[in-house]
Amino acid sequence: MAEIQIDGIADRVGVEDALGWIDALPVADAEEDALLTEVAGRILARDANSKLDLPPVDRAAVDGIAVHAEETIGASSYNPCVLQWTAAASDLAPGGARRVNAGDPLPGGADAVIRLEHVGSDGVGRATLTEPMAAGSGIERSGSQATRGSRLVAAGHRLAAADIGMLASAGLADVCVVARPRVRCLLAEGTIQAGHPLPSGGVYDANRPLLRTLIERDGGIVVDQRTIARERAALRHALLLPGADLVLVVGGTGSGSNDHAAPALAEAGEVAIHGIALRHAETAGMGLAARVPVFLLPGNPMACLLAYELFAGRAVRRLGRQNPALPFPSREMTARRKIVSEIGMLELRPVRCPSPDLAEPMPALAEAGLKALADADGFVLVPENSEGYPQGTTVTVYLYNGYGRA
Amino acid sequence: MAEIQIDGIADRVGVEDALGWIDALPVADAEEDALLTEVAGRILARDANSKLDLPPVDRAAVDGIAVHAEETIGASSYNPCVLQWTAAASDLAPGGARRVNAGDPLPGGADAVIRLEHVGSDGVGRATLTEPMAAGSGIERSGSQATRGSRLVAAGHRLAAADIGMLASAGLADVCVVARPRVRCLLAEGTIQAGHPLPSGGVYDANRPLLRTLIERDGGIVVDQRTIARERAALRHALLLPGADLVLVVGGTGSGSNDHAAPALAEAGEVAIHGIALRHAETAGMGLAARVPVFLLPGNPMACLLAYELFAGRAVRRLGRQNPALPFPSREMTARRKIVSEIGMLELRPVRCPSPDLAEPMPALAEAGLKALADADGFVLVPENSEGYPQGTTVTVYLYNGYGRA
Repeated sequence: MAEIQIDGIADRVGVEDALGWIDALPVADAEEDALLTEVAGRILARDANSKLDLPPVDRAAVDGIAVHAEETIGASSYNPCVLQWTAAASDLAPGGARRVNAGDPLPGGADAVIRLEHVGSDGVGRATLTEPMAAGSGIERSGSQATRGSRLVAAGHRLAAADIGMLASAGLADVCVVARPRVRCLLAEGTIQAGHPLPSGGVYDANRPLLRTLIERDGGIVVDQRTIARERAALRHALLLPGADLVLVVGGTGSGSNDHAAPALAEAGEVAIHGIALRHAETAGMGLAARVPVFLLPGNPMACLLAYELFAGRAVRRLGRQNPALPFPSREMTARRKIVSEIGMLELRPVRCPSPDLAEPMPALAEAGLKALADADGFVLVPENSEGYPQGTTVTVYLYNGYGRA
Repeated sequence: MAEIQIDGIADRVGVEDALGWIDALPVADAEEDALLTEVAGRILARDANSKLDLPPVDRAAVDGIAVHAEETIGASSYNPCVLQWTAAASDLAPGGARRVNAGDPLPGGADAVIRLEHVGSDGVGRATLTEPMAAGSGIERSGSQATRGSRLVAAGHRLAAADIGMLASAGLADVCVVARPRVRCLLAEGTIQAGHPLPSGGVYDANRPLLRTLIERDGGIVVDQRTIARERAALRHALLLPGADLVLVVGGTGSGSNDHAAPALAEAGEVAIHGIALRHAETAGMGLAARVPVFLLPGNPMACLLAYELFAGRAVRRLGRQNPALPFPSREMTARRKIVSEIGMLELRPVRCPSPDLAEPMPALAEAGLKALADADGFVLVPENSEGYPQGTTVTVYLYNGYGRA
């Protein structure tokens, strides 16, 4: 039989250099109009400007009664100001008071709103006040939040509930947001889909649901997840299919002769990096095919997850103009036990957090695989040039569920 | 004209007591099977157990060559172990080596996998090793991550990417998750939908898109958002419609005679709390109608948002068995300026964070409304019994975008 190519990947690229390649990729400028009800978490592509003064008219800022402020001058408990209730519609008559709710337009002539709690009754159906009110109190002035045409939210902002509420108040029904990056996954054949019986020696596919979850978390759309034969020509062809902003090639990333991913990418475009100093995902790579960024992810699900988290995910987030940083809140904690890591490769070490300040290292991924990540509260990154951390060191923990506990 | 009811809400309930009422609500036990590709962020309702040993067979943990470990005993650079490449299929013959990728089943008879980097060539097409390998190295043993029938993920866990990948590896195509709480919003009439012209004195509806965003963020489903006439009978009727696990009544929450929300809830069921010591949302309330929790939210969008965030959102998260705490990462920061708050009510104060450790208070919500929340990086909660914080105090900031910056 023919000699098998067994050279390892000679020079592994440092993680920082790989991140640098990703950060130098051009960012797509695709954008689209979307309904305000569907843009939570998306990035505004163009400034959103108010269609009107906000609020559009002077209005009550509190639940209370609208009055002429000057009529309350001199009011005190010895000398209450007595006002006549007046019904809705027309302007507020002299000597009148009208019940308004927060947000109601101010009746014509009224220039203050007094909270209900500060209003008494004289027993014959009239309102009494025992303190003077300054003009303007209890009122939200027209245009005080924004004037017509002014910028409400700047391009680049990630839209959250308060933005969406404010934009709706200002008369917008839709906004222009950055298009979601379209991601294609090309998975090496050989795994079995869940729900089918597993032949002896077979392995269920984990990478399809895993990558779909990750890509959607990062704001991308999975346009295609297809199985590709483990051969160079088939993958080269698939790499050149149109319609994706990013392609993930999964499996066959090694450097053996039956590892087709890097050679196929070289034929379809260019391999920029193959072999990265990221433990368990050393065979990851990246490059371009038809100017579309392509990431080579190892087929082992745990390694696939690592290479996605550190590299491909950053590219998805950058393409969507989301914050490219790791999408986990981080916190400084104390290592409860020693964390040992071989020098030379960046290592992701899952940890459990028995208290908010304590990080308990879990078994290394080599032993526990995806199960360790699933059981973890978060992880620590040990850089290439570090042998780990002694017990008691302050380490940065990235938290999977970073919210306060109940 | 008839005397207008002007009593304020006599006794405001403290925020802690309102939270206590929410936390005593029974939690629904509705659950449903869902595809693994659609359960990210959802809560597992029942333990998910492995359908097989994981991994199902001994397999390569690294890209390398599978060997008989005993044949490498004594290998050194002076005395390399020379092995013959053997093709796929059958068991590994004595003296043979076979190229395997991480995740490939181990060939019969092989009991170690040597990384490609540690394999040489003798120039005539054979593999050479210069170090002995222990049996078991480079191998992931069958069942080492999980055994058939063992629990992979416990009920109550929030499913993230690593869980989903692991469950797929273990042969699961779907899992049983907690059903999303079905939320109905009953909005007082009187606002104009975006896209329509605004009549003089009119106000655009902000609460529909605002609440939809918040409810979906918290894992709920909006089953219904309907406008209800500002009258007691219409609202009472709507409160008793079936098909929701939680009802939000928006607007008309004050205590004036044209405020219909609390009286309608009293007729449909019971008002447990009306009037809460939460600044700007003092008229919020809660109760039950046909045993379904009902929240009364002020119609002003900023106040609506506050009452949702502090109260209704917690109930949505609890019903879905999500973490009920505020869904924002928090961080201790230094107040860059004095934060003043009137004693007697809990106040949410938006802040900007010019650096990761510094919280700059923004204008109070009374002045800037929803715009202040939209412009904020996060917020500080000033409790009822506090007059605020002097400059330089350490305060807990809840962050809208709590992820590390790029």
